[in-house]
Amino acid sequence: MATGHRILDGTAAAAAFPLGGIGTGNVSIGARGELRDWELCNAPDKGARLPFTGFAIRTARAGAEPVTRILESRLPAPHDGDQGYDAGRLAGLPRLRGSRMQGQYPLLRVDFDDDDLGVEVSLTAFTPLVPLDADASGMPCAVLRYTVTNPSDTPVDVTVVGSLANPVGVVGRNVFHFPEYTGQPGNTWRDDGRLRGILFGTDLGADHLRFGSVALTTTDTDTTAKPQWLSGFWQDGVQVFWDDLRDDGRLDPETEFSLDPPPHPDWFTRLRVGSLGIPAQLAGHATRDFEFLLTWHFPNRPRAWQGNIRLDDTRAGEVVRNHYATRFTDAWHVAERLADDLPILEAGTRAFHAALFHSTLPPEVVDAAAANLTVLRSTTCFRLEGGVFAAWEGSFEHSGSCEGTCTHVWNYAQTAAFLFPELERSARRTEFLHETRDDGRMNFRANSVFGNEPWDFHAAADGQLGAVIRLYREWRFSGDDDFLKEVFPGARRALDFAFGAWDSDGDGVLDSKQHNTYDIEFFGPNSLSNSLFAAALHAAARMAQHLGDTDTATRFRDAAHRCAERMDALLFNGEYYEQRIDDVDEHRYQYGRGCLSDQVFGQQLAHVVGLGHVLPAEHARSAIAAVHRYNFRSDLTKHYSVQRTYALDDEAGLLLCSWPHGGRPRIPFVYSDEVWTGIEYQVASHLIYEGLVEDGLSVVRAVRDRHDGRRRNPWNEVECGNHYARSLASWAPLLALSGVDYDAPAATLTIRPRLDTPTLRSIFTTGTGWGEVHLTPAGARMVLHGGSLDLTRLVIEHATLGRLQATGVSLEAGGALDLPAHPIPPEEQ
Amino acid sequence: MATGHRILDGTAAAAAFPLGGIGTGNVSIGARGELRDWELCNAPDKGARLPFTGFAIRTARAGAEPVTRILESRLPAPHDGDQGYDAGRLAGLPRLRGSRMQGQYPLLRVDFDDDDLGVEVSLTAFTPLVPLDADASGMPCAVLRYTVTNPSDTPVDVTVVGSLANPVGVVGRNVFHFPEYTGQPGNTWRDDGRLRGILFGTDLGADHLRFGSVALTTTDTDTTAKPQWLSGFWQDGVQVFWDDLRDDGRLDPETEFSLDPPPHPDWFTRLRVGSLGIPAQLAGHATRDFEFLLTWHFPNRPRAWQGNIRLDDTRAGEVVRNHYATRFTDAWHVAERLADDLPILEAGTRAFHAALFHSTLPPEVVDAAAANLTVLRSTTCFRLEGGVFAAWEGSFEHSGSCEGTCTHVWNYAQTAAFLFPELERSARRTEFLHETRDDGRMNFRANSVFGNEPWDFHAAADGQLGAVIRLYREWRFSGDDDFLKEVFPGARRALDFAFGAWDSDGDGVLDSKQHNTYDIEFFGPNSLSNSLFAAALHAAARMAQHLGDTDTATRFRDAAHRCAERMDALLFNGEYYEQRIDDVDEHRYQYGRGCLSDQVFGQQLAHVVGLGHVLPAEHARSAIAAVHRYNFRSDLTKHYSVQRTYALDDEAGLLLCSWPHGGRPRIPFVYSDEVWTGIEYQVASHLIYEGLVEDGLSVVRAVRDRHDGRRRNPWNEVECGNHYARSLASWAPLLALSGVDYDAPAATLTIRPRLDTPTLRSIFTTGTGWGEVHLTPAGARMVLHGGSLDLTRLVIEHATLGRLQATGVSLEAGGALDLPAHPIPPEEQ
Repeated sequence: MATGHRILDGTAAAAAFPLGGIGTGNVSIGARGELRDWELCNAPDKGARLPFTGFAIRTARAGAEPVTRILESRLPAPHDGDQGYDAGRLAGLPRLRGSRMQGQYPLLRVDFDDDDLGVEVSLTAFTPLVPLDADASGMPCAVLRYTVTNPSDTPVDVTVVGSLANPVGVVGRNVFHFPEYTGQPGNTWRDDGRLRGILFGTDLGADHLRFGSVALTTTDTDTTAKPQWLSGFWQDGVQVFWDDLRDDGRLDPETEFSLDPPPHPDWFTRLRVGSLGIPAQLAGHATRDFEFLLTWHFPNRPRAWQGNIRLDDTRAGEVVRNHYATRFTDAWHVAERLADDLPILEAGTRAFHAALFHSTLPPEVVDAAAANLTVLRSTTCFRLEGGVFAAWEGSFEHSGSCEGTCTHVWNYAQTAAFLFPELERSARRTEFLHETRDDGRMNFRANSVFGNEPWDFHAAADGQLGAVIRLYREWRFSGDDDFLKEVFPGARRALDFAFGAWDSDGDGVLDSKQHNTYDIEFFGPNSLSNSLFAAALHAAARMAQHLGDTDTATRFRDAAHRCAERMDALLFNGEYYEQRIDDVDEHRYQYGRGCLSDQVFGQQLAHVVGLGHVLPAEHARSAIAAVHRYNFRSDLTKHYSVQRTYALDDEAGLLLCSWPHGGRPRIPFVYSDEVWTGIEYQVASHLIYEGLVEDGLSVVRAVRDRHDGRRRNPWNEVECGNHYARSLASWAPLLALSGVDYDAPAATLTIRPRLDTPTLRSIFTTGTGWGEVHLTPAGARMVLHGGSLDLTRLVIEHATLGRLQATGVSLEAGGALDLPAHPIPPEEQ
Repeated sequence: MATGHRILDGTAAAAAFPLGGIGTGNVSIGARGELRDWELCNAPDKGARLPFTGFAIRTARAGAEPVTRILESRLPAPHDGDQGYDAGRLAGLPRLRGSRMQGQYPLLRVDFDDDDLGVEVSLTAFTPLVPLDADASGMPCAVLRYTVTNPSDTPVDVTVVGSLANPVGVVGRNVFHFPEYTGQPGNTWRDDGRLRGILFGTDLGADHLRFGSVALTTTDTDTTAKPQWLSGFWQDGVQVFWDDLRDDGRLDPETEFSLDPPPHPDWFTRLRVGSLGIPAQLAGHATRDFEFLLTWHFPNRPRAWQGNIRLDDTRAGEVVRNHYATRFTDAWHVAERLADDLPILEAGTRAFHAALFHSTLPPEVVDAAAANLTVLRSTTCFRLEGGVFAAWEGSFEHSGSCEGTCTHVWNYAQTAAFLFPELERSARRTEFLHETRDDGRMNFRANSVFGNEPWDFHAAADGQLGAVIRLYREWRFSGDDDFLKEVFPGARRALDFAFGAWDSDGDGVLDSKQHNTYDIEFFGPNSLSNSLFAAALHAAARMAQHLGDTDTATRFRDAAHRCAERMDALLFNGEYYEQRIDDVDEHRYQYGRGCLSDQVFGQQLAHVVGLGHVLPAEHARSAIAAVHRYNFRSDLTKHYSVQRTYALDDEAGLLLCSWPHGGRPRIPFVYSDEVWTGIEYQVASHLIYEGLVEDGLSVVRAVRDRHDGRRRNPWNEVECGNHYARSLASWAPLLALSGVDYDAPAATLTIRPRLDTPTLRSIFTTGTGWGEVHLTPAGARMVLHGGSLDLTRLVIEHATLGRLQATGVSLEAGGALDLPAHPIPPEEQ
């Protein structure tokens, strides 16, 4: 089954669909429909559970025994906790027989199956996601909508109730798996006329790192609630809650704090659980939504990375606010805005979902692009007050992985550039305004976002050169000349740095010690660095030319040609590009005669940003074909790798390197036998750009088949950490296939699909608007779903339609443009 | 398939067969044949892995490509670590196609299947276990014996190699999942002529809590080794190791410490990995063992519990030595002793295994008894210098669970009493010599074992009374009058305490606030406390009588009868015993009219210790039948429990309580809806004692079916912690079925099987010897496997054989006694 259409039953324990906006943290929904992985408070926390937290349903029909169930399907084995399931798991309460999860990011649907409930129930869950609108897509919230259908003729009373343990101030778990708190959490019932529900707060000060609030609310008018369960040394609260719910489907607020007589000692539980229910009677054959809004607000981060690379963290004792915290005062405020804007936010979200999942692009490509959007909305990424975008490479289980929006990892990422371009522009500002030294050396991990001292380490050739290409991408997609003027001087310094630092003999080919994304240094000429160098030189030449600096433009353009020509002569072996090094074992961690998957990475980036071929086209095509030929394995059962393992046994995957003609170093570079999804997407898209479409798709399919909900989480591609940034390369295959290319300075949109199907439906984005293109034999139709589009020229080139063109195109959201097919000349009929 | 004969494939991820002796900690073997859960250093540490650690095999046959494999079957999904599998997992190296694990504690066998290896391989693993010999069963060691068969005509070169990351001084894991150390571990190659291998040590001082050593050795004469892999910032060591092994099946010691140039910074890796291989050529159709001895020695514990109940820990800064550390100087010394004694230790272990698993008792009963022996040899139990036995209730993932050899939990345990009785005698000494106050109040958690201040908490009625019964058990099984004289005064005080503390109206029935094993207090008359009271009074009366204190004996005996009679009158409802309490909700956590599974626990203990019926026999039988009728559920899918969960969904289990006739309190006792294996075994054995054999077996089967290797670990029954002490009740069904009853003071052994099969083969133990009894229609045969047996009288009563008797029996280990069947009188033919 196509990956994005895969339906997972409750045993798919690896599946966790994250909810949450850009830079807001997450809570996820598992394959049983359960809430899991509570990561709201500015740090990863995979596996974090909240006791007693989740949804339940009670149904009652005249003359029959009421049925009360946890609104999840059953827990799959193993059942092997060190205390069985602790009471907080509610594992001893009956659950529904089965569930079917279908996640098409950003929309999740879970259908539940049961024999006793007497109604049909499904859950729709999402966090708004609107292309080009990072704020609308950056709300700390989730919509949880249970849809109940009464299939019978007789009315049924239904209560759906959500319970939440106050998560504000959780600092750990005790040996009984219950949360421990700093500060005293407190729950408050609130009804402001528009919304009603529970605000979960704390007595911590507003500047405390753990300060925050969460709200569970509904706009439904008839509610029933137990805002705070009984507290106690034992679990009186849950017993009374459950019996209260079973009894009549209505909850009574507790009149006592605890049945344990006061005074309560210091160590008395700080746990505060609250429940909000929506009761309703459904007439025969009626369907009704029971909609809950879960919103949160944890404003404060430490003003330092405090990561494992250990950049200077002088200001770690201070706090800095999240961007979202400058937009909302607390979780209730988020809920109000969400409730007010939900129709428009949901419409945008659904339009985006449809543009992806109703497209005619291969489903694995859509699935890859959509699923990895989660990186941007995971704990890997955040935005600080002022809108500054920053990110880890990925997320370890309980902390960020490798700090500083690392240039050589983010090099591969394309999703944000084409969906939320302001985020990438923010990163380029950081890189070229704050992290590029006077001599052009870039700190490839940014510490300036927190105002701490810059990181002093050698430069990363690939990351530094790639950043220049990406600056070109950002400017070309936005057409923002002020941005370019502001940032280009840093980029020029960074590029000039390469000549001095990495070209020891001045022949135009980089050949010195080159640190790179494999966390080691390559020595001697290699096509990873030099393909990036050539592409960066072309990109910089175009920017210099635009800014009127013709001398620089000429110098860079000449250098680009010289680099490409000489590199080709030095490194192309007739089939692919090698590393030129006399003794491959003189330095550890080289690849020599190996076939490196990243060998023409610069060419891939050049394709993505519209530079076309910067290397000899035939050689580029031959090289990327060789990468697929030698490095893509349909089965890894007999593969030897002593490195980290992301694909194994009967799985398919693309190795980072192989040595088809021998010459493997004694100790090759430290990740050479690994399989990284980010590089797989890089290579897949390049294969497509070079016309090797089926080869490219085979790589994308391999990745997504490995992320099937049982082997791995479909919404989490891992490298050094969960939600790893490199997996954002997954937007590139979509770009390559759809052939959408937007050039803002030229006000030109070109759509040149590399799929030769007679019809095509695909998303497109530009710096100002987004929509869908539909190609049929009858012609082309452009529909704009958001923003606006003002084009000097629109060009469509398609196998069936040939070339269609329009000039002076202007569309607003909701608008559409039709370009009828050319009449086919008689001689071609 | 009978539970003890179940064969698990490599996907049974819950299965972990623990190796290790009494009080030594463990390492376990998983269903793939992998080493897991490294818990050698005096604390639980479930899930603890050591990087690069495990076994590999290389086979080479003339003219064919050599094959090198990790000697485990493949890793089952999910594969979802936050860095994929880190390098230390070696997940990228090929493994064997399949494995079949059959664990019959204390023997484990894993058969491997593969298509490429060209040889057949199996693993036999065990730690010696010899009944009645706690020292022989308390060695910090494991035998790991790989048996390789060459099925072909041509010779094959085979190397089996074990690698181990030095585990001495591990204090945590870093974000990359590699161990962090205190002190600098170091590996040393040693060949003492008898043994050769690697000693893994540390530079920590001998009194440091983490000080210790581990040895991986063999008595094989041809070995190959790399005692210390290359160290490095990256993983050079494993690359070079693997290539070295693949190359020719011989390992070369490294000549350099690291390829990273010195000086090495402070944070440079402290990891030290070493490998020991055994190379051999197997002729066509030859079979050969490749045997490794894994031994360890972590002598020091903190002189305090440092548990979650938080007893006084004044001396926590001091260390106290493990008992085993007084017997061995280091891990190499352990290996020497193991190598020397292995033939006799293995013979004893195999005799014990055969006595259990070749018996004719129902396999679920054997499996339950054997599997839970692991508690005694898990991190739950330990022995301090001087041989003092102490234990947690269980083991949390990374710390002990509930300290102090808790009387009311250990109340249920029978295994040690009948297999390693010196351990239980040690516990009674602690209880009655050190933890019973002048007024008879017992601290039900012992802090004296560490010399810290006694715990000041109210007494536990059930634990205190049960301890008196268990003292009777220990004395009766050992016949040790000196022990009795030493300890009985404390027991008498403890029993007298009950009259004053818990019998408010002096009617002979306990009725005051009674703390108990449900961690709450029962109020008013109940049969849990009072059945224990009656049994304790009978037991104490017999001990007093033996010591010549006739007055006390008479007083206790009278009180026992009075208690039983009055309790019966007060509480028996015609079917079972209730709790008498006017308003069941006046106090929380009562059970009132409920049917409590433990309602006649005192009667069960009385049966186990040979007291017979202390309650009216018909009522006892009716009560335990009602427990089965009402509390045993063949399916829990619709069971409501908000408590901890040890059985769920379609599983069967025995609830702690139910209310078949209504009257459930608003908030019943906090574990009432739970399922505890310890109570299931208590009830199962009682059902068998009362003749309800099939009902009893149904309960045992339910427990073991839940521990099938997929749902739960067959060798770990969990309550408040892994390896929970109460599960040691699992020896009682075996006792009840086999009907073995040894009375040392009377020098009488009675065997009265409650299975009416015409043949029976069963283990028996006495305080001085152990063996097997075989009953066939032809007669009885007693074989003594260990120790000695001197009986005044041997009585066998059996459905087919009738009553056989012998007097003046004297047997030494290896001896046997035959009792031919009586000629059948003609009138019965």
